[in-house]
Amino acid sequence: MSGPDPAALRFGPDDRLDDRDPAATDAFAGEDQARDFTEDSARRLARAQLMLEAHGTHGLLIVVEGMDAAGKDEAIHHVMGAVDPGSARARSFASMSDDEARHVFLRRAAIAAPARGELAIFNRSHYSQVVGDRVSPELLDDQSLPPEVEAGAESGALWDDRFRQIRDFERTLVENGVAVVKLFFHVSKDEQRRRLLERIERPEKRWDFGKADIEKREQWDAFLDAYGAALRATTTDRAPWFVIPSDQKWYSRAAAASVVLGALHGLHDDFPEPDDDQRELLEWGRQQLESDDS
Amino acid sequence: MSGPDPAALRFGPDDRLDDRDPAATDAFAGEDQARDFTEDSARRLARAQLMLEAHGTHGLLIVVEGMDAAGKDEAIHHVMGAVDPGSARARSFASMSDDEARHVFLRRAAIAAPARGELAIFNRSHYSQVVGDRVSPELLDDQSLPPEVEAGAESGALWDDRFRQIRDFERTLVENGVAVVKLFFHVSKDEQRRRLLERIERPEKRWDFGKADIEKREQWDAFLDAYGAALRATTTDRAPWFVIPSDQKWYSRAAAASVVLGALHGLHDDFPEPDDDQRELLEWGRQQLESDDS
Repeated sequence: MSGPDPAALRFGPDDRLDDRDPAATDAFAGEDQARDFTEDSARRLARAQLMLEAHGTHGLLIVVEGMDAAGKDEAIHHVMGAVDPGSARARSFASMSDDEARHVFLRRAAIAAPARGELAIFNRSHYSQVVGDRVSPELLDDQSLPPEVEAGAESGALWDDRFRQIRDFERTLVENGVAVVKLFFHVSKDEQRRRLLERIERPEKRWDFGKADIEKREQWDAFLDAYGAALRATTTDRAPWFVIPSDQKWYSRAAAASVVLGALHGLHDDFPEPDDDQRELLEWGRQQLESDDS
Repeated sequence: MSGPDPAALRFGPDDRLDDRDPAATDAFAGEDQARDFTEDSARRLARAQLMLEAHGTHGLLIVVEGMDAAGKDEAIHHVMGAVDPGSARARSFASMSDDEARHVFLRRAAIAAPARGELAIFNRSHYSQVVGDRVSPELLDDQSLPPEVEAGAESGALWDDRFRQIRDFERTLVENGVAVVKLFFHVSKDEQRRRLLERIERPEKRWDFGKADIEKREQWDAFLDAYGAALRATTTDRAPWFVIPSDQKWYSRAAAASVVLGALHGLHDDFPEPDDDQRELLEWGRQQLESDDS
């Protein structure tokens, strides 16, 4: 069963978010077909991630970004619900602690990055330091940066340096076997409004509403500009960005699953063949068990 | 009191370790003068590191490498004994644990790197993965690397990639306020023999003797070649290597202290001036205490 084509969702270094339709539902005739694909993808994700663990030579880092209420959590829930929790982790990046803020900003990501054999999902990520920090540069004041570095926020040098530092960091991951795919959940301002209202109305959601949801919404254009710049500067062949149309949750879940599956299939297409030692061990195990009449 | 000139100890990208005399004692007329310098350096190190902590905008990473018995531990002991243990740490890099070996090799260093306001010393470091791993490539077998990456050990591509990854990593540290200085303790094979014999003879040292001391000594030339290549490939203006002549411990301690002092003085030349708020607070505190007759 084929779903959205990851290649069609890829974001290029000259692309613009304005040109991407958040309401797109390409590849599916309708919601039912998308739900079938998503359901089927769980089984395929489980198998592909088990191959990752079995080989142990590659890892997968999935970076998830997007505006509030874009549907990131649900998509992460779908992937994590499918895979082996023993070798997969989801990590939410909230505001930096005082201690984190005094370290090089990429240290959080370096610590949380997956080992070979593991899958890790970042729910928000090191990209906060080139998006949130850029929209609200007063956040830099808490990071005790060298004055000449902080001064680069205005000239733009700070963001260019951080973009390069991020590219270098992700390149090092990829060259050491950890593939990197990055998903931007692209929701329209109208659909966000609807979802935030729902968050306020429903008892099981209203605990999750905060003043920041409205404040950040008022800076919508600034956030979209900052995301666009960050995506353009850091989408590479090694560590590409994908823009996930997110106005329909049934579509964004399916599209995210399709991108993650594509990344896993790019690493391995089967379980490892046992080598001679393992074959001998398996044969010995079989004989032991077959002659075991206890 | 002036000691060895760090600039004279710097290692350039075309330099060779063979051209450096491990027995050099430049800058001092003799041992007494060196000991005076080292003793005096403790007070200056304490003050300079307190400035680092007070400003909080810069950190300092000191990487210490060298053959066994080159005198690394004693020099680290001298620096650490001088500075505030609350904002300074020394971290020894032993063989990687199974868990560490499955991660990108730079992750250990990223975790242990200092925050802004801190000083950290690596006793051995991420350079083991371009020196020890290169001399004994069978160590790579425990790192579950992608086959095409491990194949690069023979062609040299793996080492070139790791050199670049290290340069990128250290550049990111420096651009975020964490200065990096790297010290290679350069001891002669004869002097190492003398020190290892001493290690065997003395009750307070013999517990520290291991079979590896002899085995690695038999690979002396291979280690020196690997160190030379690593130093050449990773000595940069931002993160330079210094070669510390180490046949005389009184000299290597003094030279190491001089390089560390130079790095700290390059970051700050005084304590921060209190701003208006802090000035007001200080004035208020003075008045409170002067009128406090309890």
